[in-house]
Amino acid sequence: MTEASAPAIIRADGRTPDQLREVTIERGWSAHAEGSALISFGGTKVLCTASFTNGVPRWLNGKGKGWVTAEYAMLPRATNTRNDRESVKGRIGGRTHEISRLIGRSLRAVVDMKALGENTLQIDCDVLQADGGTRTAAITGAYVAMADAIEWARGQKFIGQRSTPLIDTVSAVSVGIIDGTPMLDLAYVEDVRAETDMNVVATGRGLFVEVQGTAEGAPFDRRELDSLLDLALAGTASLTELQRAALAASLAAGE
Amino acid sequence: MTEASAPAIIRADGRTPDQLREVTIERGWSAHAEGSALISFGGTKVLCTASFTNGVPRWLNGKGKGWVTAEYAMLPRATNTRNDRESVKGRIGGRTHEISRLIGRSLRAVVDMKALGENTLQIDCDVLQADGGTRTAAITGAYVAMADAIEWARGQKFIGQRSTPLIDTVSAVSVGIIDGTPMLDLAYVEDVRAETDMNVVATGRGLFVEVQGTAEGAPFDRRELDSLLDLALAGTASLTELQRAALAASLAAGE
Amino acid sequence: MTEASAPAIIRADGRTPDQLREVTIERGWSAHAEGSALISFGGTKVLCTASFTNGVPRWLNGKGKGWVTAEYAMLPRATNTRNDRESVKGRIGGRTHEISRLIGRSLRAVVDMKALGENTLQIDCDVLQADGGTRTAAITGAYVAMADAIEWARGQKFIGQRSTPLIDTVSAVSVGIIDGTPMLDLAYVEDVRAETDMNVVATGRGLFVEVQGTAEGAPFDRRELDSLLDLALAGTASLTELQRAALAASLAAGE
Amino acid sequence: MTEASAPAIIRADGRTPDQLREVTIERGWSAHAEGSALISFGGTKVLCTASFTNGVPRWLNGKGKGWVTAEYAMLPRATNTRNDRESVKGRIGGRTHEISRLIGRSLRAVVDMKALGENTLQIDCDVLQADGGTRTAAITGAYVAMADAIEWARGQKFIGQRSTPLIDTVSAVSVGIIDGTPMLDLAYVEDVRAETDMNVVATGRGLFVEVQGTAEGAPFDRRELDSLLDLALAGTASLTELQRAALAASLAAGE
Amino acid sequence: MTEASAPAIIRADGRTPDQLREVTIERGWSAHAEGSALISFGGTKVLCTASFTNGVPRWLNGKGKGWVTAEYAMLPRATNTRNDRESVKGRIGGRTHEISRLIGRSLRAVVDMKALGENTLQIDCDVLQADGGTRTAAITGAYVAMADAIEWARGQKFIGQRSTPLIDTVSAVSVGIIDGTPMLDLAYVEDVRAETDMNVVATGRGLFVEVQGTAEGAPFDRRELDSLLDLALAGTASLTELQRAALAASLAAGE
Amino acid sequence: MTEASAPAIIRADGRTPDQLREVTIERGWSAHAEGSALISFGGTKVLCTASFTNGVPRWLNGKGKGWVTAEYAMLPRATNTRNDRESVKGRIGGRTHEISRLIGRSLRAVVDMKALGENTLQIDCDVLQADGGTRTAAITGAYVAMADAIEWARGQKFIGQRSTPLIDTVSAVSVGIIDGTPMLDLAYVEDVRAETDMNVVATGRGLFVEVQGTAEGAPFDRRELDSLLDLALAGTASLTELQRAALAASLAAGE
Repeated sequence: MTEASAPAIIRADGRTPDQLREVTIERGWSAHAEGSALISFGGTKVLCTASFTNGVPRWLNGKGKGWVTAEYAMLPRATNTRNDRESVKGRIGGRTHEISRLIGRSLRAVVDMKALGENTLQIDCDVLQADGGTRTAAITGAYVAMADAIEWARGQKFIGQRSTPLIDTVSAVSVGIIDGTPMLDLAYVEDVRAETDMNVVATGRGLFVEVQGTAEGAPFDRRELDSLLDLALAGTASLTELQRAALAASLAAGE
Repeated sequence: MTEASAPAIIRADGRTPDQLREVTIERGWSAHAEGSALISFGGTKVLCTASFTNGVPRWLNGKGKGWVTAEYAMLPRATNTRNDRESVKGRIGGRTHEISRLIGRSLRAVVDMKALGENTLQIDCDVLQADGGTRTAAITGAYVAMADAIEWARGQKFIGQRSTPLIDTVSAVSVGIIDGTPMLDLAYVEDVRAETDMNVVATGRGLFVEVQGTAEGAPFDRRELDSLLDLALAGTASLTELQRAALAASLAAGE
Repeated sequence: MTEASAPAIIRADGRTPDQLREVTIERGWSAHAEGSALISFGGTKVLCTASFTNGVPRWLNGKGKGWVTAEYAMLPRATNTRNDRESVKGRIGGRTHEISRLIGRSLRAVVDMKALGENTLQIDCDVLQADGGTRTAAITGAYVAMADAIEWARGQKFIGQRSTPLIDTVSAVSVGIIDGTPMLDLAYVEDVRAETDMNVVATGRGLFVEVQGTAEGAPFDRRELDSLLDLALAGTASLTELQRAALAASLAAGE
Repeated sequence: MTEASAPAIIRADGRTPDQLREVTIERGWSAHAEGSALISFGGTKVLCTASFTNGVPRWLNGKGKGWVTAEYAMLPRATNTRNDRESVKGRIGGRTHEISRLIGRSLRAVVDMKALGENTLQIDCDVLQADGGTRTAAITGAYVAMADAIEWARGQKFIGQRSTPLIDTVSAVSVGIIDGTPMLDLAYVEDVRAETDMNVVATGRGLFVEVQGTAEGAPFDRRELDSLLDLALAGTASLTELQRAALAASLAAGE
Repeated sequence: MTEASAPAIIRADGRTPDQLREVTIERGWSAHAEGSALISFGGTKVLCTASFTNGVPRWLNGKGKGWVTAEYAMLPRATNTRNDRESVKGRIGGRTHEISRLIGRSLRAVVDMKALGENTLQIDCDVLQADGGTRTAAITGAYVAMADAIEWARGQKFIGQRSTPLIDTVSAVSVGIIDGTPMLDLAYVEDVRAETDMNVVATGRGLFVEVQGTAEGAPFDRRELDSLLDLALAGTASLTELQRAALAASLAAGE
Repeated sequence: MTEASAPAIIRADGRTPDQLREVTIERGWSAHAEGSALISFGGTKVLCTASFTNGVPRWLNGKGKGWVTAEYAMLPRATNTRNDRESVKGRIGGRTHEISRLIGRSLRAVVDMKALGENTLQIDCDVLQADGGTRTAAITGAYVAMADAIEWARGQKFIGQRSTPLIDTVSAVSVGIIDGTPMLDLAYVEDVRAETDMNVVATGRGLFVEVQGTAEGAPFDRRELDSLLDLALAGTASLTELQRAALAASLAAGE
């Protein structure tokens, strides 16, 4: 990713600019949920659960289609200094709303609602510990939880044997420009320094689901945008492999 | 934008794919606000006001920097069917939160907070009538209201004569792919049919401030993304001209 | 209204004590609502929309009667200094509640609910700019919006050709005593100085629907009350004429 | 009040049209409040407490003036069928807001805020049992509680011996037209049948503080309005006597 | 209760350690509720109403069982210094929630829900004046109100003549250790000084329904716990007698 | 615990009536909090964090004393069926309030607030997975997190070397009577069947901090209460040992 003759750039945690943090995916973490995964992107840990229920919200009744929705939240001390609970404040903040909606859209992009039938998947992504990239870890882990919940529903015959609600896989990663260098999967200390910050959600086939780029410092040009997109697609390709490997393993006894 | 030999595509309202709707900017609409603009993108009408106050939020006290923040809302009958008021529901929806934050970030990207001094600009964008593109019209109109409020503050000597808080202009436009064709500035009937929907915020110099692309239908590939970005930058360049023309005119007596 | 030999009292804006401000009524302002009017009483501008829907609230189901309800709100920068949004505060203030209820009662007083049938008219009055008398402008404009929505419903055959839900017209005006002189249609600078402030809602036939008089400064006697009522009824008679004229014109193409 | 030759109209509870219900005022009902009164207008029972505190709300700081504010509420089973608690609903209804504001304005009309000094009187009116006229009983009882709290404050030397914060007394009564006859102090069964309903707040000197007339059924004419005002002023004159008698008695040992 | 040779301990209000305050129970206080009681434990006065309605909450539909639920609240000036209303704050505090739940559980413990049939008893306990022990007075008074509401329902034939929904009586009392001495029915000044504070809910047969002991100061040992339980059971036995006596009297004409 | 000649009672999960579930305490689970522990009581898993901050709430300012407060919450899918988030509902439920208050009181009982100095410990207990006894696991784990946070503060010299804010240890366990047999540490399936349910909070020295017994089915007698207290104290003694062992180990590198 860096130019040929330049000295190699090494990040604070020893990574190269185009390297993901260590990613672990612990399937079946929850004894109760139909699907679940505890995912970590380095110091970021997100517990993703997928709750499968028969029936759909009222506005979808009788249309022969299912629904996928998501909620994201952070434990109060997931971060370096404690945040007040949104339940105590009595209102959900804009950031929480925004990320919940992003996760929901990202997952719906790879679900065939007709094949899901009149069933609902409620995804919950709770950040237990935060170190940057919580929304991208959440999407990546939520896909695994959702896949397991769909398999569970197939086992329960809530979804037909020939139905394939999952039409692709989906994962997400953050990218940003720091001191002029595009970097993959920003940790928190990098995120606060980034001039430009982008979250990219892509399918296993390499298509974009969401591209959200923001100039945190100076506005960015087309060339920078292109290099960030390149980097992000390489990252989601790696995450896709990790999701496949996790789902290929047999589920732990916990489930 | 369309391929050479293809028959010209004409949209429902008679526009070509790369054509903006009629845009009008009525400066000084509000008798009370320090800056204001009633902007319309076709049937979308947004009243943007900029309220200038001395002082900053507590967390910025004593840092010698200013602040710009924004709130977006829609009148209940701005849309085809009435929406319940968020004040009556007692909570702000995720969409409102998301757009308010987007407007705030977009405006802050072109403001030099040191030059603004310890002053706050509160932008309000209220959609009086909605026909697609309300957030992009809001950003485009809010810039004009903000520019007038800064001039007002300069007149009041709240901002020094040599300070130039505005380091660039900013505008925004939506683009989307409909039936395979990239189109600029989607009206509501187009927006609901778009496979991919993107909002692009760019500066007068042609740099990106925000790129938010969402696959509403099928995920999109890199080539489609590129064509949407081209179209959007052409659109924001036109909007920049319209902003400049509006600001060049002398302000109506109403202000 | 002033005593014979006294020198003529001229108000800050050049009006005589018994003179209304300039009143304009722009019908069909909203492209979406079944009825709408942008009304101005001098610097006070209120957008009134009437949303017609089939069906009634649950508690009225099956009684063969319709319902009319209203909500009033102010844009945050409608006033000289910005007010926090009630949606952001998460609760509606007492003043907003009080005025919404007043508008609803005033409109219901001239509607024959049986003739309306099991249909609901939801009136929204949003103050775009405030300069005193926002509630009276709202009632006066809401009547026009409501009348248009009823005509629309008749055109749609939701209301029978022989049904006349409107049994009278309704308008409202404020009156007050300033420096001992009763004055009509107070602007904001007058309103804050008034010793006594009264809002009167009356029908086209000159009957009272609401009389709300408040001693802001010193309590008032019977003679003062009487002179205020005289002044108010003259004002609503003029407003009735303006409503009739507005409704007599053919509706603009916008609707 | 009734015409000479007409047969006497007797109301459901045996009263003549111009007769108040039995009114009782129990001063010093609360052991804790600086002033308190349990007032009953027939079956309507309202516990009024006046809490005296040094200091004023922030917006009044340093102006040498005091403040009087009021809150009104109803116990859930004060009425014939139970109402949900506003604390459980998480929001205060419009009616509650409206009445709280009315009580506050009414009391402030007879208080000289300079003489009160930088002190606050918080009035609470809680309806223990409702049978019509709760707001008028609340105002009438609140005056007594407030008078006692001011005496208490004088005893504590929070108010100077020569200061007379109370510049008049205040009481309130409802009037309405039922089957064409104006009647005083409506009980609940009368209130729901009234064509026109008016609440009048007046001082001991017979001046108006508030006049709130509402056409519940048909709009009313000037003659009806006049007869209601006559009736109301006779009622508040009687209530003034009852307040004076109550305050003339020595306070029970409970206080 | 005190050791043989020790000098008798006399409490601030003249009671011995094992003595209840004066308890009064005024049945039928409310003209509207199906059952009601104004109970006082010394200076603590709680108005308890029982509202009987046919039908049950949705989650109990069709199970042939009834439901009993309770809400507790305090008037703002029931206490020595005024508390803000929970309706105004927009949220119910933890203490209120906790006590409401305790009252509901306590009452349900003596009701045979099958015998109650598909009916609901909503109990409201509103503290008019507080001087310690408000929750125990509330439970004790609520039982009486509930018993009367059940008799009312039997009279209305909503409950069969042979059904006996009340399988026992229930009352409650507080106990605490002050300066090393266990004391019964703490007044407020005692409550704040207690090292250990316990609320005991027991049936007329002397069985425990709830035991809630809290070390306010130092943790307590088993012997202290035992002496508190002894004292509490003696207290609830006395309260049971008072409840029986109150219910044996014929109901006042007010009901 | 069972009588000599009776056949041994074995519980669904193979435990004897007086046996705790497997308890694990993972100290230093959170990278950010000053103290933390992931505790499990069988299938119940609670993440406890202790956040140390200098300063105290306003009402304690300048008194030379510290403060300890706690919040409890459950992830939406911690349970067998999903619960709506309290942040989304906009209000905290009674159960959550009640448990948060219990945890706070329990921890404060073993803290010398003078020795803590003007510092605050905010404890957060988030139930990641629930299988009965979440509040008792929370208290037991919270003590460990709090102890580590105090050690951290000592290391930072926020607490003096000679100060010993912890005057005892504290743990908690549930007990209940099932089919007439008292049992220790109920799992969820046992909890729903228990006739009587008691939570006991005790110090390491064996003194009671809280005793909360509730008759879920039939009221209980003194003998049953005594046997539950015996069982609980044996349980908290075992938990005290486990806490000591956990705190004796050196903290993992994660912290």
